[in-house]
Order: sequence, then C-alpha cells, then structure tokens
Amino acid sequence: MRRDDPVRVAVLGCGAIGSLYAAHLARVPGVEVWAADPWREHVAAIERDGLRVTGQADFTAPVHARTHASDLPRCHLGIVATKSLHTADAVTAAREALADAAVVSVQNGVGNEELIAGVLPRVMRGTIVTAGAVTGPGVVRYDAPGDSWLGPFEPRPAEPGEIELLARLLNEGGLRTHAVADARGPQWTKVVFNAATSPLSALTGLTVGQVCTDPALRAQVEVLIREAAAVCAAAGIVLTRDPAEAVEEAIREAFAHKPSMLQDVLARRPTEIGVLNGGIADEGRRVGVLTPAHDSMVALVRGLESSWEQA
Amino acid sequence: MRRDDPVRVAVLGCGAIGSLYAAHLARVPGVEVWAADPWREHVAAIERDGLRVTGQADFTAPVHARTHASDLPRCHLGIVATKSLHTADAVTAAREALADAAVVSVQNGVGNEELIAGVLPRVMRGTIVTAGAVTGPGVVRYDAPGDSWLGPFEPRPAEPGEIELLARLLNEGGLRTHAVADARGPQWTKVVFNAATSPLSALTGLTVGQVCTDPALRAQVEVLIREAAAVCAAAGIVLTRDPAEAVEEAIREAFAHKPSMLQDVLARRPTEIGVLNGGIADEGRRVGVLTPAHDSMVALVRGLESSWEQA
Repeated sequence: MRRDDPVRVAVLGCGAIGSLYAAHLARVPGVEVWAADPWREHVAAIERDGLRVTGQADFTAPVHARTHASDLPRCHLGIVATKSLHTADAVTAAREALADAAVVSVQNGVGNEELIAGVLPRVMRGTIVTAGAVTGPGVVRYDAPGDSWLGPFEPRPAEPGEIELLARLLNEGGLRTHAVADARGPQWTKVVFNAATSPLSALTGLTVGQVCTDPALRAQVEVLIREAAAVCAAAGIVLTRDPAEAVEEAIREAFAHKPSMLQDVLARRPTEIGVLNGGIADEGRRVGVLTPAHDSMVALVRGLESSWEQA
Repeated sequence: MRRDDPVRVAVLGCGAIGSLYAAHLARVPGVEVWAADPWREHVAAIERDGLRVTGQADFTAPVHARTHASDLPRCHLGIVATKSLHTADAVTAAREALADAAVVSVQNGVGNEELIAGVLPRVMRGTIVTAGAVTGPGVVRYDAPGDSWLGPFEPRPAEPGEIELLARLLNEGGLRTHAVADARGPQWTKVVFNAATSPLSALTGLTVGQVCTDPALRAQVEVLIREAAAVCAAAGIVLTRDPAEAVEEAIREAFAHKPSMLQDVLARRPTEIGVLNGGIADEGRRVGVLTPAHDSMVALVRGLESSWEQA
C-alpha cells in the first residue's frame, strides 16, 4: 500500500469482541474499518451512527458495516471474531476482500487458524482477554480490559511486519497488544482454563466459581488441566501462566460468571466444545497423548446438543 | 411362627416395584402383606379396594396399607422398595415391625443393604428386572416381567431358610425368583449396565438407545463398563451376563427408554447416582481399583443436582 493510503481492516463478526476491536481500531488515524455481521439492525446502526463503546471507555467511532462479508472492499488486515462454528463460512464469504490480507483469529479455542488457513494465505494466532457485550444495535459495552497477543500461525504465517502493524494499531486504539514470536502459549493458557471449567459448568448449570469450589467438580477441573498440560508438554507449548492460578483468580473475581458454553446450553445453541476440549483432544492425538477426560466432555456436550435436535 | 399363622410381609415403598411385589405376594394363600408409602391417596385406595395390577397381569389383591411404616405390625419378612435416597428413613421407621424380620432390598444400585443392616438384623441382596408404573391411586401397570434373584447380604445375612421362603412365595405369586448363594453377580450385572448408561442419558437428555448408538457416547459407555468390570474382578464378583450384550439388547428392545435417572433430572428430583456410579466408585476404593470415569459421572450429576438448590 502507498504511504498515504488508509490501512483497511476487515472485522468478521460484530459480537462483543468484534465490535470492541472494530471501534478501537477505527479511532486510529489512517485506519479504515469494515465490519461484517448478519445482524441487520446492528449493521444499520453502525453505518448510520458509528459504533458506540460504553463501560470501560466512552466514544463513538466511524465504522463501515455490511451484512455480507462478500460486500467488503479489499483489505490489508483481517480479524475473525465470529463464533468458531462460523469461521469457515465467514472467511469463505470474505475470500475476495482478504485475498492478500494477513488475518488473525481472536476467537475461542484452537483450530480456527487451521480453518482460516484453508482459505486465506497469511494467518496469525490471536488471543484476547478483553470482555464485553453488545447491549443493542450499534452499542457495545466494554466490561473488562485485558491484553491481547498476536503471533504467526506456523503453517501459513503472516509476515512479522504485518503482525507488528496490527499490534501497533490496536495499541494506538487503546487495546494493549503484544506481538510475539510464539503465540501458542497465551492461546493455550486461555484454552486450558476454559476447557477445564466451561463444560463442567455447561453440563451442571453451575457458575465457574461453583464448579471450582465443589470438591468433586474441582477434582474434575484438575484432571482436565493435567491432561491438557501433558498435551502442551508433548507439543512444546509453554503456558504463560499456571492454570491453577487462573482457577483461584476465577473463584475470587468471577465466581458468578456463566461461561459462554453454559449460556449457549441455556439458549440451546451449538457450543464451542469442538475448539476447546475437542481442540485439546485433537492436538493430543497429533502428539500421542491420551485425553480421556476431554474426550468425555466432548461426547457429553455434543450429546446434549444432539438432544435438542432430536427432541 | 406357628404353622397356621400367616406369613406377614412388610413392603416399604409402594412405587411400581413395591406395588408389584406387594400385589403378587398378597395373592398367595397364607401371606398377609402390609405396605407403607407416604402417598395418601394410593394408600387409601389400596386399603379400600385392594391393589390392582394391569398390563402383563390382571388381578386385584387385598393389601393392608399405611402412610407410616411405624404403624405396621410385626412382620416375618420385609421388602425395601423405596428410592435409595429414602432407605435409611424407611427402615428406621419400620424398625419395630422388622425387628426380627429378614429384609431384602429390591432397590437400584449397591449400598442399600449396608444401610438396612445398620438398623436391622438379617438382610438379603435382591435384584429384580421387573418393570412397571403406578398409573393412579391403587393401580400399578405391570410392563415387563423379569427374573428376581435373592441371596444373603454377607455381613449380616438372612438365614438360608428365609431366603428360600421369600423366593418360594414370590414364585407362587407369579414373579419368577431365584434363591442364590451369591447374589452379587445378578446385582452388579444390573448396576454395571445402569451406571454405564444412566448418567450419560441424564446429562445429555438422550434416551438409552441414543446414548448407546452415538459413537462418542458409546465409547464412554465402554469406558464405564471397563472400569466397573475391573472393580468386579478385584472384588470377586462374577457378572451373570456380558454388559456389552445388555447394551445391544437395550438398543434393540428399549431404544426410546428414558432411564429413571433422566426422569429424575427432568423432574429436578435427586437421582440415585450415589448407589450406581457412587457405589461402584466406593467398592473400587475398597478393593484398590481407580474409577475416574465413574467419579466424573458422580461429580457431574451431583453438580447438576446442586444447581437446582442454588438456582
């Protein structure tokens, strides 16, 4: 791109995370953000009034929005922020717009990058801790700030300059972001905690804090962490934080939190079990580590999902 | 007892199984049946009109019924047919009536005999395959005939003559019953199948047939069977039937069956997980066999139960 051209960023999926990323990037001078989301009212409000951020920040940023990713212009960078179930559809629809873009997944779990790399040329692993919620068309509430990490997806890596560029723009926009050489550590640190707690919560209806303080369920949390840690060890992934510490923090600071998997179950929506426990089990198979407890969680949650279809 | 005295049998709990046992015994000459159940309308109808059996049989038998076991007369034999959660309360209330009786549990799971033996002197293990449902006050539908097995509870055994007597009376009444020296085999054969399928059904909402034909859940069924079989092997319990065969039969003949544990979950009632997977796990600890998959089922189902209290 030429020096004075805007940096165009596509954001696929304008739920809480996609909206927060889009809005923060859109307030950086020289950045043009194009968002795609199927929710018509949200897209119309963003196009008309801009994307409004409340909560931990308070601003409105101009964002272009379309209901179909196929209507986005050619972009330099892409951010995939859909539910993991929609990854393949989203990047396929955005194939033209992102044909020469470096694209990051900021989604839950592991395995999304593989899907993106099946369609697009240069991919980043992204991990975020930021939290929020879309509270109405065109409005996203920013609940909890948190760092983001970007790094290459090893089989089809984005260029180091592209990773640095996206990290710089996010920092300028106000989201603290680190460009790292191996982003698997942060990614798996988040995945291991989620996979060790979310399915137990989803299957029992208990909050994260209740799961982690019930002695029998806590023992299950620890079995799941142990299996995942063995997979990481065999795969050469270094967690950035002891999962036991994340458990203690969740008890202290997020006791009543209902993980998105439980929210999905309560709403009878398909969950992200496939990229959480399923992603750990897949990696375990790849590196020759058995993961019976994760297999059990996948079987149970998928069985629960299937009961809604069969009811 | 004198030769011409009636044989008095107490039946604690007049759900489907208690009612079927009470009615079949009550039609044997020389047998007097006293049933106890807290459901007033059921007790009143039985007292007034007798206990009516429909379905696989069609008769009405005279049964005495009381809402409190403490109102039963002194009996020679006792049958505990409550949900396992009420075992201790039921036998405590019947302590006077059963002070010199030989008492059998025909309940689900393992561990009920221990509770009975904590209160009463002579205990039998009982296992039944019979199925039915109470369809209204004083009426029980007999859905599926099936054999029963009676044998001594080793730590506080009933006398062989008592076991033979109860078996003979049940056979005369029309329920095919075997008196055996070691009743653990039939008991555990039923427990292992139930524990390998019921919690998976209860946690997912799927029927027995759906659980056993979903490949990932079927793998979980097999893990649970394998662990339980290892416990049996270490405890010297010989199953009377290959659990895999019971699985195939369930798929063929009871595909749409919702196990009582699933029915309990749907009705938000406490389940019998404690005497099914919990009983297997307890015996595993006793004989030094790890049962991680059963532990996981116990943790999840108990967690689910606790979510109803905490909601």
